[in-house]
Amino acid sequence: MPFATRAYAAQSATTPLGPFTFDRRDPRPDDVAIEILYCGVCHSDLHQTRNDWNNSTFPMVPGHEIIGRVAAVGSAATKFKPGDMVGVGCMVDSCQHCDPCQHGLEQFCENVPTFTYNGTDRHDHSPTQGGYSERIVVSEKFVLRLPEGLDPKSAAPLLCAGITTYSPLRHWKVGPGSKVAIIGLGGLGHMGLKFAHAFGANVTLFTRSPGKEDEARRLGAHDVVISTDPEQMKAVANRFDFILDTVPTKHDLNPYMATLKLDGTLVLVGLLGPIEPTLSTLPFITGRRSVSGSPIGGIAETQEMLDFCAANGVTSDVEMLDIQNINEAYARMLKSDVRYRFVIDIASLKKDQ
Amino acid sequence: MPFATRAYAAQSATTPLGPFTFDRRDPRPDDVAIEILYCGVCHSDLHQTRNDWNNSTFPMVPGHEIIGRVAAVGSAATKFKPGDMVGVGCMVDSCQHCDPCQHGLEQFCENVPTFTYNGTDRHDHSPTQGGYSERIVVSEKFVLRLPEGLDPKSAAPLLCAGITTYSPLRHWKVGPGSKVAIIGLGGLGHMGLKFAHAFGANVTLFTRSPGKEDEARRLGAHDVVISTDPEQMKAVANRFDFILDTVPTKHDLNPYMATLKLDGTLVLVGLLGPIEPTLSTLPFITGRRSVSGSPIGGIAETQEMLDFCAANGVTSDVEMLDIQNINEAYARMLKSDVRYRFVIDIASLKKDQ
Repeated sequence: MPFATRAYAAQSATTPLGPFTFDRRDPRPDDVAIEILYCGVCHSDLHQTRNDWNNSTFPMVPGHEIIGRVAAVGSAATKFKPGDMVGVGCMVDSCQHCDPCQHGLEQFCENVPTFTYNGTDRHDHSPTQGGYSERIVVSEKFVLRLPEGLDPKSAAPLLCAGITTYSPLRHWKVGPGSKVAIIGLGGLGHMGLKFAHAFGANVTLFTRSPGKEDEARRLGAHDVVISTDPEQMKAVANRFDFILDTVPTKHDLNPYMATLKLDGTLVLVGLLGPIEPTLSTLPFITGRRSVSGSPIGGIAETQEMLDFCAANGVTSDVEMLDIQNINEAYARMLKSDVRYRFVIDIASLKKDQ
Repeated sequence: MPFATRAYAAQSATTPLGPFTFDRRDPRPDDVAIEILYCGVCHSDLHQTRNDWNNSTFPMVPGHEIIGRVAAVGSAATKFKPGDMVGVGCMVDSCQHCDPCQHGLEQFCENVPTFTYNGTDRHDHSPTQGGYSERIVVSEKFVLRLPEGLDPKSAAPLLCAGITTYSPLRHWKVGPGSKVAIIGLGGLGHMGLKFAHAFGANVTLFTRSPGKEDEARRLGAHDVVISTDPEQMKAVANRFDFILDTVPTKHDLNPYMATLKLDGTLVLVGLLGPIEPTLSTLPFITGRRSVSGSPIGGIAETQEMLDFCAANGVTSDVEMLDIQNINEAYARMLKSDVRYRFVIDIASLKKDQ
């Protein structure tokens, strides 16, 4: 019997988020029903509620950094039991039979993963709705176990900001001896600093804003370079093996390319759309430098990341939020006025009663 | 005593090439003096004589695909003796002490390699002049041995077109099981087909021009895709591990990005300048695809390439040319009217007497 679920939703690309009630399905045999406790607020929530990527459907309940407690399990579900603390990230399903799915790379599912919200359930074709809600029902294959010792509030952003930075740092084998730079100090950037530092790399933050040095060092940076200062940029020419670019808005990549050393790679994780201004081929050809990109991570790797965080004391820096303040939080995110991730206390949904 | 040397030179960016006489230096202790027999005509000769890259100095004697015979050696030179058949490519010197130089990657010399022409000698600061001339004097470290069994005429283009395609195919580990595409069927492209085939890859040619199928197959392609046909492009979506883009003029990379599979790389070797139209980040982020670039190769790798060619019967397809016809040859190159590389018979210089 469908379960009436309180939430906050955008009704259109131009309206603020507000209270909304919808039905969650009964658990299917392989499903887990989760009582949501906390949900992180991702920059992509803002993009999608405003239809910045021209693929939004409404009403839309955003949220894909979900931490909660298992409330019920389907008849064939074996991984979890009621009471378990769990997480759900950006995906709730995938085809499970293509080559990437069979190799634990569900984020690259050739038949497109089912996204946690603003997607379509691949079985009943209903719209998927995210974590700004009191309950979610997800195939157990896409549910993560929250390890002992991880604070559930500050773990929420690990499900997107965490894995989005962890996965490329691992894929490109960042470790002791690596010289790494992170561009941007937001939700993704602060996790990039923490992970790169935890992996043993020498870590630099690129930022446009002076005054972030102390914060950056606290988060794991060894050096801070003001990217608008040509002298500082020149001083780090040919320096980095790897640059993780977390900036979600248009920006010039060319000055950063010159700071990569021979065979270095710049990986985009924040920007969806055209690269403007365009890139020159010179740094590619003269230094065999590369540009690449990376989305979140697979389910197995996301579990590995959570376990790594628990074992190494890595968490997100969060500011807790009542859901009634979500529109103000979006406005503050646009000004980068958050250190470093808003997390909604889903208990606040009850205040609207 | 400097050696008066006949050549063909451009006197400015707007004048055709014509006869020119200049002095070659006496061999320094580590030098080899080479009587030039053949010199390939590279697309970059055209760019540089026309100052397309805004770095040209005149008078300019182009030519960096040089095959000749050792005429004399300096007092401390030990690698070669008079009569040896040798080659000279795009570089005649480098700093020899930076990290890339010490690892045999002189093409990435941090203090900039000395280019064979349109460069400046790092010892006497004289302008370097290339292979459209009867003699050249080069440090023996930058002289290649022409292996037994390689035809000297068709070996000339290996010194630039050959190594420029060989090096990235090796660096990105193209071999049996690789699905590779080559964009463009010119001097570089035809060598790309031959090497990718010789390395055991499955090879596709992308071309805008129908009617090249038989030629492409003769040169090593298993398939030919007309890049202007959306149906054919769609049929190869997500197909290639590696794409070698040899096109030297502005072109849209986005349609090719979609033909790379997960973790595939497109490597630019022909285009110097801005990427226009610009790239979308979507294929990067959704498929961890990369764009990179590569210039020629190091001296040791260039020797390895020549030895590979001799052992495996790989050579360039050439059309021989008297130097008096060089301006006509440039005009034909602009129309891609050559199969696939012009090579100047330097003996023709004597006809101007």
